[in-house]
Amino acid sequence: MSDPKTQGQIVTVTIFGQEYSIRGKGDEEHIRQVAAYVDERMNLIQDQTSITSPARLAILTALNIADELYTLRREKDRIFNEFEEKTRELSDALNQGMSEV
Amino acid sequence: MSDPKTQGQIVTVTIFGQEYSIRGKGDEEHIRQVAAYVDERMNLIQDQTSITSPARLAILTALNIADELYTLRREKDRIFNEFEEKTRELSDALNQGMSEV
Repeated sequence: MSDPKTQGQIVTVTIFGQEYSIRGKGDEEHIRQVAAYVDERMNLIQDQTSITSPARLAILTALNIADELYTLRREKDRIFNEFEEKTRELSDALNQGMSEV
Repeated sequence: MSDPKTQGQIVTVTIFGQEYSIRGKGDEEHIRQVAAYVDERMNLIQDQTSITSPARLAILTALNIADELYTLRREKDRIFNEFEEKTRELSDALNQGMSEV
């Protein structure tokens, strides 16, 4: 989202009291949602810890969000594998039924 | 991952030259993978921009990873909906076949 070479509109958002001009592939609403999520998580981590350094808070925020991303990747793979297995079972059952008719 | 109340082992990782003692629900390998991902993305953003403030770089890293998370959520929902639709179609076809026999 921060790559200056990426095409897309520029949206100005505020995170942890600082403004950022973000150029993203998504629409403005998507960029604002993502920025609000980061801001919310960073404030939550500040509330839950005694950390005051914005850089450390931001890195812990990035770590938390990356943890969610990795967990979701596993969840997506699980759903995809379940999907493949289930459709194979049903296709086999359907083909079996058709050949028996 | 940073919530001090969360149960789990503590793993010390280095991100952008600073050490962080992380307590996470996952195993050590998972925590190290997530930390390496954040470190890699933060260095990449530093290389691609003229930003020098670690706090701004970390927030842009968090924004990038949150953008990936939102994109993956949509992708997971799409797969899940496709899964439901496909299994419904196949179940209907199977039931139809069985009632015709």
